[in-house]
Amino acid sequence: MIQLSRPQIEALVSVDEAATEAVRDAYRAISDGRANLPPVGYLGFPAAHGDCHIKFGHIAGDTVFAVKIASGFYDNPAKGLPSSTGVVLVFSALTGQMEALLADEGYLTDLRTGLGGAVASLALCRPNSQRFVIVGSGTQAYWLARSLRHLMPKAEIAIWGRNAARASALVARLQGATVAPDLEQACRSADVILTATPAAEPLIQADWIRPGCHITAIGADSPGKQELETALVARADLRVADNIAQSLDHGEFAHARAAGLIGPGDCMELGAVLAGTSVRRAPDDITIADLTGVATQDIAMARLVLSRAKAAQ
Amino acid sequence: MIQLSRPQIEALVSVDEAATEAVRDAYRAISDGRANLPPVGYLGFPAAHGDCHIKFGHIAGDTVFAVKIASGFYDNPAKGLPSSTGVVLVFSALTGQMEALLADEGYLTDLRTGLGGAVASLALCRPNSQRFVIVGSGTQAYWLARSLRHLMPKAEIAIWGRNAARASALVARLQGATVAPDLEQACRSADVILTATPAAEPLIQADWIRPGCHITAIGADSPGKQELETALVARADLRVADNIAQSLDHGEFAHARAAGLIGPGDCMELGAVLAGTSVRRAPDDITIADLTGVATQDIAMARLVLSRAKAAQ
Repeated sequence: MIQLSRPQIEALVSVDEAATEAVRDAYRAISDGRANLPPVGYLGFPAAHGDCHIKFGHIAGDTVFAVKIASGFYDNPAKGLPSSTGVVLVFSALTGQMEALLADEGYLTDLRTGLGGAVASLALCRPNSQRFVIVGSGTQAYWLARSLRHLMPKAEIAIWGRNAARASALVARLQGATVAPDLEQACRSADVILTATPAAEPLIQADWIRPGCHITAIGADSPGKQELETALVARADLRVADNIAQSLDHGEFAHARAAGLIGPGDCMELGAVLAGTSVRRAPDDITIADLTGVATQDIAMARLVLSRAKAAQ
Repeated sequence: MIQLSRPQIEALVSVDEAATEAVRDAYRAISDGRANLPPVGYLGFPAAHGDCHIKFGHIAGDTVFAVKIASGFYDNPAKGLPSSTGVVLVFSALTGQMEALLADEGYLTDLRTGLGGAVASLALCRPNSQRFVIVGSGTQAYWLARSLRHLMPKAEIAIWGRNAARASALVARLQGATVAPDLEQACRSADVILTATPAAEPLIQADWIRPGCHITAIGADSPGKQELETALVARADLRVADNIAQSLDHGEFAHARAAGLIGPGDCMELGAVLAGTSVRRAPDDITIADLTGVATQDIAMARLVLSRAKAAQ
């Protein structure tokens, strides 16, 4: 059995072309019927302010399947521990034997989420998009910026954070990004907006968004979170989700759905967009992608790590 | 993180009083509302004749929770591999941190299932029961016999197997057990019958069972399996299950339910029986316990292994 720590996994896979293509294929696998994705397992620990999600699945033809066990315990920082952690287990889809324990502590989730946000943005924004605004200054904002830089080397990336010092610190870690001092102003001139905050009240208002703008929202992944004004989601010309059911249930699209403004028929699946079978935007369309996370991405990352670990042996 | 191999786990826990009490408490936790047991996760691999079950849960007050990933790939023996395998992961219920990887290869499942069968039998059989018949000669029959011997040292244990050589080999591994040459004859004189076979056709007929007999059935744990004639299940004076919904859906009681002969109201929960809050048998009652397996048992075993491993450090 292969057992890898976070530093070992970081050395094997980061923002690169194979990882990007793995993420793209993970989305396509949902839409073309290759993915077997049972419902996500959930355990709540209300007294400890924690929860655990168990994501698992298999992509037809893969020789492995993966189980990801990821926890968030929100009192952890006071104990000197990160609030999120996780492990990914890889098993043979031919014999059931455990092949690997990837003690990535959430690194692969951060990476695939950043790559997914960049992939969705590139697939849906206008080809001539220049001004990219990242809303948020945490771990996920970092990986979004890294992934955008990889996919669109000439993008102008501005970062806005509620905490200006954190935004400046993030910009200092990235090459060529700038701080956006004012969120409204940044949004009004943006070609692409990527949101990665834990906001429970909408940050981005509908009337800030100019025609042709694309927005990718990755922050809202559980009930009560919301980054975009409900009217903005309702007003969009095109809504895309990695998993439509999840997005309407507990993602960014849930609020517009709860208000009766949109339904499943008003959303498209990102995998179908990436397969080129569905969408074509008009230049002035406002488009929104909402990503709540899917297990095929975890499988894809685990498979890539494992193949590289075996090749390095 | 504590990491233990099967031999290390075998050295830490086997048929003993603490393990038995842990299994009893695991059943009670379901009935008294302490257990948080989400639906079992399932992945099928039909092309490889395999499947994977992911059981997880938490018992209120426990400082840990567990996730068990257990696979059966039925072409494995031809490849020189066991058909079943599994791992149990233990996490802190206070911080989400992974505390242990128990690479038990299914040992803890075998052990807790054997202990569970003996616990259920002792709870439900007449106090003066003497003649115990185990139907089956596989791994599970072995653990049932070991567990019965622990709980009822004076029990006369006879083993019947479809394959007489395997039954003899099993008897040779056990102290004081005998081979039952004829199944019908053994059943007709049995006080307690324990079935642990993968039978897809009923082995035990209703008219073989004398008044006062108790039967514990552990073999039928998925659709299509059946060890007891449907008429026997329907005829029983008392039906008990570790998990009533599972038993009626894909356990031994499923066939009588499908035939419209019994429903949920005709079954009692083993945890309630063990808590002493419910059942009292008449001496001539025929009673049946059906065990399909519950995650609280896996949690209880993992907790015991972990506490002993820490104590030994």
